[in-house]
Amino acid sequence: MAVHRIGIIGLGKIAQDQHLPVIKSNPDFELLAVSSTRGLSHEDAKYTFQDYRELLKLPDVDAVSICTPPQVRHQIAREALLAGKSVLLEKPPAATLSELEDLRVLAAKTGKVVFTTWHAQYNKAVDEAKKALAGWSIKRLLVTWKEDVRHWHPGQQWIWEAGGFGVFDPGINALSIVTRIMPEPVFIKTSSLEFPANRDAPIAANLTFSMSHGQGDLQAVFDWRQTGPQTWDIEVETEAGMQLKLTHGGSCLEINGRVVVQEEPAEYQGIYRRFDALLTIGHSEVDDAPFRLVADAFMIGKREQVDAFED
Amino acid sequence: MAVHRIGIIGLGKIAQDQHLPVIKSNPDFELLAVSSTRGLSHEDAKYTFQDYRELLKLPDVDAVSICTPPQVRHQIAREALLAGKSVLLEKPPAATLSELEDLRVLAAKTGKVVFTTWHAQYNKAVDEAKKALAGWSIKRLLVTWKEDVRHWHPGQQWIWEAGGFGVFDPGINALSIVTRIMPEPVFIKTSSLEFPANRDAPIAANLTFSMSHGQGDLQAVFDWRQTGPQTWDIEVETEAGMQLKLTHGGSCLEINGRVVVQEEPAEYQGIYRRFDALLTIGHSEVDDAPFRLVADAFMIGKREQVDAFED
Repeated sequence: MAVHRIGIIGLGKIAQDQHLPVIKSNPDFELLAVSSTRGLSHEDAKYTFQDYRELLKLPDVDAVSICTPPQVRHQIAREALLAGKSVLLEKPPAATLSELEDLRVLAAKTGKVVFTTWHAQYNKAVDEAKKALAGWSIKRLLVTWKEDVRHWHPGQQWIWEAGGFGVFDPGINALSIVTRIMPEPVFIKTSSLEFPANRDAPIAANLTFSMSHGQGDLQAVFDWRQTGPQTWDIEVETEAGMQLKLTHGGSCLEINGRVVVQEEPAEYQGIYRRFDALLTIGHSEVDDAPFRLVADAFMIGKREQVDAFED
Repeated sequence: MAVHRIGIIGLGKIAQDQHLPVIKSNPDFELLAVSSTRGLSHEDAKYTFQDYRELLKLPDVDAVSICTPPQVRHQIAREALLAGKSVLLEKPPAATLSELEDLRVLAAKTGKVVFTTWHAQYNKAVDEAKKALAGWSIKRLLVTWKEDVRHWHPGQQWIWEAGGFGVFDPGINALSIVTRIMPEPVFIKTSSLEFPANRDAPIAANLTFSMSHGQGDLQAVFDWRQTGPQTWDIEVETEAGMQLKLTHGGSCLEINGRVVVQEEPAEYQGIYRRFDALLTIGHSEVDDAPFRLVADAFMIGKREQVDAFED
């Protein structure tokens, strides 16, 4: 199998912590170039650029991973596709759904691969949960995603701005697992969004869902004000009585009280294995389901004002 | 060409004012049945039901027009498709984007036609505007959609509730014209939403757009507080200097100051001509672009509180 020669655009925390070491450890990829507006370089990369447009001119680059902030991803991805490069998109894949749809259309036009990466979708626990639930009717879903924003996003003002998604920044991770494991699509039925008086993005959200069949009790609770232990759990109960619980952000799985999978998250290893497979067969994977649920939650959401929040 | 035997589900104002007379005047359609939860009947229909499920059991019905409130459209459309009927959806076609996506998937699975109808897309003025703009670079877009909610929606509390869309109820009409006539997709760049202190939906919105090419000045202003003359105008200027103006909600077109089309709106005639064509070739038309822009505007929108509004 040919090795994919890859460039990384944007050398922020996620590129440094995940993409670079995972690419290095995967023999199907060779890091050829990086670009960083701040002028950062990396020892493994043959070429370094400040302007990603220079990177896109390299004929040897087959694919790029776009690790910039979401606001500029669409424009960079467009130019990459038009330059004949395949594209891996960090999450969220674009600033809006319409931008993502544009990339889907452009992938088809150019024949290049676009791959939207969502949290935990390639974890073993998530795979096993999906298999266990396939074909069953769902009676109950409870998503509890509660974390301490002061710990995870200290001083990051942009997540509190309009378009910064607020508590949906972690919440979309939960939704990406839900859309993966549920045997049928879920739809947002009601949405309640808590906006701090001094902020333009929600700090907490309560969602209820429906499915096409059945009258299940389907809910999600997102909260960014959780101190002490952090909670990233998804519980599902089937009509037939199976109890399934994903914990630790989708890395551990219990079924009927028995531990089925318990592992350290190896999300990005799975992402790059998947990207290799997609590049080899020339097939795009543009999954907009988690993003659509977020947009639906904002569109039909009832806004409640809560106490001002300072971090 | 075979005549399409049609049922109407939901006999509210839009069915009475538009669907029934337009079906009667179109020889390609035969009204076979109606269903109305309030027990209304219609002289042209052979069968009348209170429960739409009874209507869906009629083997002779080829297609249904769903004219109920949007909250229940998805469920009815699902059942209609599974019963082997093609479906025309009043606007908006569903309560959320995820519901609409589900119908797109189900249309493909069942081989039946799903047709999303959007405001004014079949007007001659809109067709001519689309042709005139094709291939040109856009320098300026100004959408001005200002009307008096007290006149058009007296006492309709649901449009002020979360999920009722507020000023996007008329605004989506403007967006459906914009997505139709612009030579390339537009993306919401910024969105400012004015919520009355006592309401859960916006009374006004200011949007800016971007396109993939160029740095045009692209804007939309929606306002529901307009008294006196009502304004439903779309102005476009190309880089090459063409000035195009659609007025009267997309029924009149001026290009460079010259009136090109001026006609009474004949929206539903165009909708049923299109539905006939789609049924004949067995092809669905699920256009989610206007709905996606609305969801994007809510998702990245900055909320401003304004004076309470009583109607």
